[in-house]
Amino acid sequence: MSVDAILRGDMLNSVLKGLTTLVSEARWHFKEEGFHSRAVDPANVAMVIVDVSRENMEAYTIDEEKVVGVDVNRIFDIAKNLKRNELVELQVEDETMLKVKFGSVEYSVSLIDPSAIRKEPKIPKLDLPAKIVLDAGEFKKAIKAADKVSDHVVFRSDETGFYIEAEGDVDKITFHMSEAELIEFNKAEARSMFSLEYLKEFCKVAGPGDLLTIHLGTNYPARLVFEVADGKVRVEYILAPRIEAE
Amino acid sequence: MSVDAILRGDMLNSVLKGLTTLVSEARWHFKEEGFHSRAVDPANVAMVIVDVSRENMEAYTIDEEKVVGVDVNRIFDIAKNLKRNELVELQVEDETMLKVKFGSVEYSVSLIDPSAIRKEPKIPKLDLPAKIVLDAGEFKKAIKAADKVSDHVVFRSDETGFYIEAEGDVDKITFHMSEAELIEFNKAEARSMFSLEYLKEFCKVAGPGDLLTIHLGTNYPARLVFEVADGKVRVEYILAPRIEAE
Amino acid sequence: MSVDAILRGDMLNSVLKGLTTLVSEARWHFKEEGFHSRAVDPANVAMVIVDVSRENMEAYTIDEEKVVGVDVNRIFDIAKNLKRNELVELQVEDETMLKVKFGSVEYSVSLIDPSAIRKEPKIPKLDLPAKIVLDAGEFKKAIKAADKVSDHVVFRSDETGFYIEAEGDVDKITFHMSEAELIEFNKAEARSMFSLEYLKEFCKVAGPGDLLTIHLGTNYPARLVFEVADGKVRVEYILAPRIEAE
Repeated sequence: MSVDAILRGDMLNSVLKGLTTLVSEARWHFKEEGFHSRAVDPANVAMVIVDVSRENMEAYTIDEEKVVGVDVNRIFDIAKNLKRNELVELQVEDETMLKVKFGSVEYSVSLIDPSAIRKEPKIPKLDLPAKIVLDAGEFKKAIKAADKVSDHVVFRSDETGFYIEAEGDVDKITFHMSEAELIEFNKAEARSMFSLEYLKEFCKVAGPGDLLTIHLGTNYPARLVFEVADGKVRVEYILAPRIEAE
Repeated sequence: MSVDAILRGDMLNSVLKGLTTLVSEARWHFKEEGFHSRAVDPANVAMVIVDVSRENMEAYTIDEEKVVGVDVNRIFDIAKNLKRNELVELQVEDETMLKVKFGSVEYSVSLIDPSAIRKEPKIPKLDLPAKIVLDAGEFKKAIKAADKVSDHVVFRSDETGFYIEAEGDVDKITFHMSEAELIEFNKAEARSMFSLEYLKEFCKVAGPGDLLTIHLGTNYPARLVFEVADGKVRVEYILAPRIEAE
Repeated sequence: MSVDAILRGDMLNSVLKGLTTLVSEARWHFKEEGFHSRAVDPANVAMVIVDVSRENMEAYTIDEEKVVGVDVNRIFDIAKNLKRNELVELQVEDETMLKVKFGSVEYSVSLIDPSAIRKEPKIPKLDLPAKIVLDAGEFKKAIKAADKVSDHVVFRSDETGFYIEAEGDVDKITFHMSEAELIEFNKAEARSMFSLEYLKEFCKVAGPGDLLTIHLGTNYPARLVFEVADGKVRVEYILAPRIEAE
C-alpha cells in the first residue's frame, strides 16, 4: 500500500500555495486519476479545490486509493525554495509518514490522522450564468489596485464586458475588459460583491500567463478557477459574496 | 475645459517620486508648454520643481491652462506598480476629479481645492558659480557611502575637480571626480554643506545613466537638476545649506 | 612602511563576510605571501581563518610585514555595495589609518591598536579522518532545510557516503550524497553533531559553484574550508561539536 508521485517543483508549490491560503491542515487524496484536495477556511467564507491529474505528473504510482492528513504549512516551508523545474518526489508508504525528496534532500514528516482534520466540504452545485476567462496577471493587477482604495470589490458582467469596481472615500478603481479583450466571455448579466482580503490571497497562486476562469452570479458565490504551473495544476476557489449595503 | 495627457509609466513615477520626497499634496499645472509642479517641504529646507514638456509626452491636449490640487502619495501608491514602458493616461474633466488610466484599470481620485494647498514658492534667483554635470548613479553611490559615516556632507569644487566629503568620528568618505571624469565642469570655486537626510531622498528619483547637474555656491543653496526617465522628466531640487561649525 | 593591495570587490566582500560572522574586530596580517586574518567568536565555539594569497590579487605591494587592527563591521558596511568585478584598493600608510578606494570614492577609517583586540588563537592540530568535497550550494540547501526542523544537525560519513541529518518533533531531514555525487570523498567513518546557528552563518560566505571541503571526525571539531570568489579567497571555519544526548 504505497504512493509514489514525481512532479515539478512549481507544481508542488502551487498545490501548497493554494491550500495554505485557507487552511493549515488538509486531507490529500491520491486517487486513480490523480491528486485531489479540498478544504474550507475556518470562517466558512471560501473553499479551495486543488487537482493534479496523473498525466500532468512525471510519474505516478499508487497501489490503491489513499487519503492522508497533511500539515500543509510545514511542507510549504520546506518546498518553497524548490526551483521551478526541479523534480520532487512524494512518497507515502503507510499512513504515518510522508517523504518529500528533491536533489540530495529527503524530508520526512509525520502525517495526521485524516479523521482529526475538519470534515471536507461537499462541492456545492452553483448555477452561475456568467463565464469570464482572462489572464490571471491582469486580474492580479486589478485586485492589487482595488486593495489600495477599499476592502471589498464588486465583480459585474453584462454585454459590455466584465468589471471589477472598488470605491474608497475619495477615490475609485474600475477595471474593465470588453469581450474583445477577454479570452472567453458569454456576456451574461451578473453582479456580486466580495472581500478583497480573500481575493488578494487567491491571487498569489497565479501570475501573468496563467489562465483564470471566473463563474459569476448575482449576490451568489463565485468560482475562480486558476490553471497554474503551465496549466498542470488546477486551483479552484469558491468564495461567498458579501452583502451589498444599498 | 479638459486635460488629457498620455505618458510612459516611468515618467509618471518620476514625477510622483520627485514630489512625494518633499510633500504629500501639490498643485499640478497643466500649461501650454507641458506639465509643471513645484513645492516646498514643511521645514522650508528644500524646494522641488518638476517639469515634463509636452513634446516628451505621447499625447497632450488641453483646452485651457489648468491648476489642480493633488494628493500625490495616493496616486503614487496606485502608479508605483506601472511598468516602465506601460502608457498611462491622465484626465481632468473638471476641478473635482483626476482619472489615471492604464491597461484595463481606471483610477479616479478626488482633487483638492488648490487654494487649500500651501502657497507655491517663487523660484529663487541664485547666483551659483560652479556647474558640475555627472552621472546620477555615481552621485547616488557617493551619497549612500557618505550616509554610513555622517549625517551631513560638504560639496566643494575647485580647479582640481568636484568633491563630496563626509566625516564621522573615526572614519571619513571622500568622493572626487576630476574634470576628465565629469561630464561637464567649469572649475569654479564653491563650497557648501548639506544635510544627507534630504540628499538621500533626492537620489531616489534617479539611477545610473541619468544626468545630474549641480549648481553650487559658497555657503549658499545648491540646485540639483536630475534628468530622468530617459531625459523626458526634469526634477530639480533646491536645497538650503547647513551652517559649518568651524 | 606601507601596504597597497588591489583586489576584486567580491574578494573583499568574502573576506569581510567570513570575519563578521564571528567577530566585530580582527587583526589583519599583510604578509609576504598575502593577506591573513583569524579570530575566535566570543563564545569560543568557532574559529575563522581567512587567506588571500598575493597571486590572487590584482596588485600587492608591501614594504614589510604588517599587522593592523580593523573594525570589520564598519568596512563591511561600506564595501557591501561593491560590484563583483569592481576593483578596490586597500592602503595602509601607518598604523592609524586604513584607506579603501573604489571608483571615485575614498573611504578612510581609523585602525585599532592590535593589542587591544582579543588575542588570536593558535590554529589547533586536528586529526580528522573523513574528507568530503562538495558544491557549497548543495550544502547551503541542506543547511537551510535542516534549519526548518531543528537547531542542530549530525554530519556523518561512512563508505555509503556523506549525510547531514536533522530531526524535529514530527519531521526529519536527511541529506545524502554518495561517493559518485561528491567531488572528492575518502569514505572514512566519522560522526559529529553541530549547531545550526553557526552553520547557517558560515553558509552565507559561499554560493553555488563554490567548493567546500569538510574534514570530519567523531565527536570532534570539524573544519569547513570554503573556496570563494572564484577560488581566490579561502575562508576556513573550525567548529566545536555539540554533545549528542543519547
